Amino acid sequence: MRGAMIHAAGDVRVEDRDAPTLELPTDAIIKVVAACVCGSDLHLYRGTELVDSPMPIGHEYVGVVEQVGDDVKNVKPGDFVVGSFMASDNTCEICQAGYQSKCEHVEFVGSNGAQADYLRVPLADGTLVATPGQPDEDLIPSLLAASDVLGTGWFGAVAAEAGPGKTVVVVGDGAVGLLAVLAAKQLGAERIIAMSRHESRQKLALEFGATDIVEKRGDEGVAKIKELTGGLGAHSVIEAVGTQESMMQAIESTRPGGHVGYVGVQHDAQLPAGDLFFSEVHLHGGPAPVRRFLPDLIDRIWKREMDPGKVFDLALPLEEAAEGFAAMDQRRAIKVLLQP
Amino acid sequence: MRGAMIHAAGDVRVEDRDAPTLELPTDAIIKVVAACVCGSDLHLYRGTELVDSPMPIGHEYVGVVEQVGDDVKNVKPGDFVVGSFMASDNTCEICQAGYQSKCEHVEFVGSNGAQADYLRVPLADGTLVATPGQPDEDLIPSLLAASDVLGTGWFGAVAAEAGPGKTVVVVGDGAVGLLAVLAAKQLGAERIIAMSRHESRQKLALEFGATDIVEKRGDEGVAKIKELTGGLGAHSVIEAVGTQESMMQAIESTRPGGHVGYVGVQHDAQLPAGDLFFSEVHLHGGPAPVRRFLPDLIDRIWKREMDPGKVFDLALPLEEAAEGFAAMDQRRAIKVLLQP
Repeated sequence: MRGAMIHAAGDVRVEDRDAPTLELPTDAIIKVVAACVCGSDLHLYRGTELVDSPMPIGHEYVGVVEQVGDDVKNVKPGDFVVGSFMASDNTCEICQAGYQSKCEHVEFVGSNGAQADYLRVPLADGTLVATPGQPDEDLIPSLLAASDVLGTGWFGAVAAEAGPGKTVVVVGDGAVGLLAVLAAKQLGAERIIAMSRHESRQKLALEFGATDIVEKRGDEGVAKIKELTGGLGAHSVIEAVGTQESMMQAIESTRPGGHVGYVGVQHDAQLPAGDLFFSEVHLHGGPAPVRRFLPDLIDRIWKREMDPGKVFDLALPLEEAAEGFAAMDQRRAIKVLLQP
Repeated sequence: MRGAMIHAAGDVRVEDRDAPTLELPTDAIIKVVAACVCGSDLHLYRGTELVDSPMPIGHEYVGVVEQVGDDVKNVKPGDFVVGSFMASDNTCEICQAGYQSKCEHVEFVGSNGAQADYLRVPLADGTLVATPGQPDEDLIPSLLAASDVLGTGWFGAVAAEAGPGKTVVVVGDGAVGLLAVLAAKQLGAERIIAMSRHESRQKLALEFGATDIVEKRGDEGVAKIKELTGGLGAHSVIEAVGTQESMMQAIESTRPGGHVGYVGVQHDAQLPAGDLFFSEVHLHGGPAPVRRFLPDLIDRIWKREMDPGKVFDLALPLEEAAEGFAAMDQRRAIKVLLQP
């Protein structure tokens, strides 16, 4: 089969690889219908995370079940499935509490490389969710989004307690930030302020339900949010970047007692605990437990209540994965869909 | 009147001062019945916070209303009252959301010095809560505790979502930590693990409802908590120290999706955002909005459902305030009550 490999920063190649096989009775093999390039893949592409040796890449996927292990009961060959980037048993105490991304038996599906013709999904019963039937072609991008980028924005909105009567700020206008706008809207937020200085992203934010756009950043951005919220700050702020600056901007934009949901992958930021203490905000985030939200997300997509697939502004054949990485790296594309 | 002044690190003196007078129509003057020395006062006493010039000290108090301004409607001369260390209007949007410690008109009552014969309390209507009648003598320490140290431990327990079915860890065996144990018990926690290596404090923790004592700290302490919780970590962890080490110990002792309530006053700690992100805990804390809890706390004390006053293991006349500071600084006393 064909699959994308990252060899080093800036060096993604689509190559012949052995097709995966069942390794454990809890595995499933799926034929990938669509995959995509994630903002977090860019850490490797840009060299901010080291590539030790060539490795398969991609962790977002939808597909059709090809084969299942003997212990798999919830999905069967022929099912169209969406899965999280984190494989989880969905039965342990942590999963049952809704934190499947920290399952006691968690595995990163991306280690197997989803940007490929076929993918082995561990813990298939706990990880994959079948759609009600074979989806119409136009639903595929939205279902693919549910696999990570929508699920992550959704978790940010839930962690920030976005909902009726709330003013919600979204820091970050990447695909996750834009889908956090959509999530806040779906969850019933009253006012949604998107922080963005790119016209095409502002436009999509407005389509997804943003009521206000703020172009300023840092201290000026915080001052603008205060101005728009009677001096108090927002009830809910979703951080979808992952830098020191964006994190502090999010915390400072939140009113005392308000909630910051942070889903931008954090690396080197240091949070001054004194500032955090006196801000008196709630802070919650981390790798999104997408599995918690998948049944609800699939249902909303299936009923065409939302169209998160709009974040894909470039679709390429799998063979052109390298161009997909380049387009996202250079911000020529918000999010790239790859078709095997 | 007589009142305590801090002149410099290690230098507390009780001196003659002018008795306070009403400055605003929202003020009340109270005759202080009991005050105390707070762990946070020790920052000044130890020199970790600078004393620029001699200033009144003390921010925990109970007393009898002596005089009220024209706008004060909720308390009247003769009422026995408990107040928070933060004066709040209790009507603004932030107060109504339960964050009176960050009231839009917040003032630190301690600036007026509660370790004195009389105290001016700003925003009296929003700050003071009258007890149902004149309290029996033996209730006074407990009512005094409600003014800060109990209210702070209680906030830590609420922020950590301590409650039925939960395993709660308390990091810190000062008065706040011990009263956090009591709060967790009152809130119905199933298991309460107090981290303490001092026999007298362990004893009080057990009296207050701790089910387990862990003497180890740092990584060893975290390992012990993991061992006691099936490898997962606690549902709820209350941080009541305020150092980098205690904060990381609290975060690492919490299971994914669990809650850290932190009430130790934070100064220089830096939280590595990456570790926080991947821990996937909820983090909430800050200066306790004691006013939110006061009616409930007074009610429980009045009905003798709890006896938080046990944290006072030394009572001194106000004139001996300096000895009170020394005893707490040297950890000869858990908490010192001062009687004007």
